[in-house]
Amino acid sequence: MSLTCVFCNIISADEPAIRVFETETVLAFLDARPVSRGHTLVVPKRHATNLDGLENHEGAEMFRVGTLIAGALRRCDIAADGVNILVNDGRAAGQTVFHSHLHVVPRHSGDKAKFAAGLLARRAVELEEAGASIRSQL
Amino acid sequence: MSLTCVFCNIISADEPAIRVFETETVLAFLDARPVSRGHTLVVPKRHATNLDGLENHEGAEMFRVGTLIAGALRRCDIAADGVNILVNDGRAAGQTVFHSHLHVVPRHSGDKAKFAAGLLARRAVELEEAGASIRSQL
Repeated sequence: MSLTCVFCNIISADEPAIRVFETETVLAFLDARPVSRGHTLVVPKRHATNLDGLENHEGAEMFRVGTLIAGALRRCDIAADGVNILVNDGRAAGQTVFHSHLHVVPRHSGDKAKFAAGLLARRAVELEEAGASIRSQL
Repeated sequence: MSLTCVFCNIISADEPAIRVFETETVLAFLDARPVSRGHTLVVPKRHATNLDGLENHEGAEMFRVGTLIAGALRRCDIAADGVNILVNDGRAAGQTVFHSHLHVVPRHSGDKAKFAAGLLARRAVELEEAGASIRSQL
């Protein structure tokens, strides 16, 4: 358990999260303050602050699992029409948790205003049901 | 040469682009209408409309090369403080060219207003010098 890294604590199950998928290398769980319903994070299990601290195979696995999640977000009852896959690398790029992570954000046709509002608000919401829905398609 | 896909035409050199890096699997070149100076795209050489059309090794290579470019953007005279790595998958997510691609966008501390303006304007600008600068660090 790390006293300082919330994602390391989620990986070690010392802090709760709605987990949706896991491999030997990465863990996927729901963002606690989603931009939209189903917003998922994919993180390497080994702590790395930034992209340049990742091994190639870890980055590859983050991206592969992000793509898997993107497919599940389209197929499950969230029924995404599109998906943004995003890494904010460094504080200047909007990184707020310094354990490298990939965002997978479901989008719907015509959701620009709602999406922008979600970006600004980042409210904590009930996540259980969204997690179950995504897991059903993985 | 594809009559319909601008990125296939760039890959085959039937359309011009400022190339910054190339492997057997992917090509990296400057976005013709950058959000910020040095905004680079990484595309698979084989045409695939969306993420779900990519082979795992192609996605892995896009991400690996995106990470390399991110490092170069920090080291070169663009001197990025951070980088956004982004895939817009599907029209609903902002995809406008239907050959899957990964954006690598340099960010600078305190650039939010300039970045937002760049997102809205997407102006064609002189790219040669930015390309040379990035290549110098790859």
